[in-house]
Amino acid sequence: MKYEFSPIGIVHSSWSEPAGVPIQGVFAEGATGTIEVFPECAEGLADLAGFSHIILLYFFHRSRGCALTCRPFLDDRNRGVFATRAPRRPNPIGMSTVRLLGVDGRVLRIADVDIVDGTPLLDIKPYIPDFDVRDNVQTGWYATARHRQTVADTRFAGNDVKEVP
Amino acid sequence: MKYEFSPIGIVHSSWSEPAGVPIQGVFAEGATGTIEVFPECAEGLADLAGFSHIILLYFFHRSRGCALTCRPFLDDRNRGVFATRAPRRPNPIGMSTVRLLGVDGRVLRIADVDIVDGTPLLDIKPYIPDFDVRDNVQTGWYATARHRQTVADTRFAGNDVKEVP
Repeated sequence: MKYEFSPIGIVHSSWSEPAGVPIQGVFAEGATGTIEVFPECAEGLADLAGFSHIILLYFFHRSRGCALTCRPFLDDRNRGVFATRAPRRPNPIGMSTVRLLGVDGRVLRIADVDIVDGTPLLDIKPYIPDFDVRDNVQTGWYATARHRQTVADTRFAGNDVKEVP
Repeated sequence: MKYEFSPIGIVHSSWSEPAGVPIQGVFAEGATGTIEVFPECAEGLADLAGFSHIILLYFFHRSRGCALTCRPFLDDRNRGVFATRAPRRPNPIGMSTVRLLGVDGRVLRIADVDIVDGTPLLDIKPYIPDFDVRDNVQTGWYATARHRQTVADTRFAGNDVKEVP
């Protein structure tokens, strides 16, 4: 089974390379950017301006290959990739919650952006705490993670990884 | 540009048809299911058992076509699709946060499941409130939505929609 997706737009940010990008939006406070939504999808932006935060799904276009275990930025040992947010995933789909500052036609102004410039955007969903927030949460290795590195380095930039069929 | 994704596993639930599925996990409390992760991706499940909640990205395999505006279950007028969680999106990727009850080899036992049986799973990410929760949130049309329908009907089940190129 294969599913084919096409971008609905492009994310523009001040992060020109993967190394140096804040590893999460919460570490990117104030970093602004824009989303250019392609004309054929622009009608779908109606009513979005009322939301203060949006969830972006995008293609990790600067990532190569797949590693089923990796050492996350916030830890000092290898973890299963599905227990991390690392980009080298079987399906390299990134997810970020950003602030929506405004909608100008088919251009969205966003903030708290942890996304590399030029990233192909796959979807936009409204952030709705009633749907997206959970209580009584346990966070596994993250709860006791020893590292506090908040900016990406080059660890996911090389090609020394195996491909998953 | 086209990106091709392959499932990493299959979601099994008690919801055999789209109509009747709770429209969000928060309306599916206690509904259990399982995820069968394919053998070639099982190594990526290491360390996941420590997390109480996981975010699933999946293919809306029972949805057909794309509608850039639609009437959400919770409202009484049409809205831009990117301001909704409706399945008929340009890229029909669903996102659900579920409770992780346990990991038995490459089978995950989950609860609060709002996903149709047989859904192809694209990705699993750990739910981490530090990354995923935002304050001072405005939720646009949802904040004053008049309907409180919490179970899906057949509105997204037909084929009377336009395809986006």
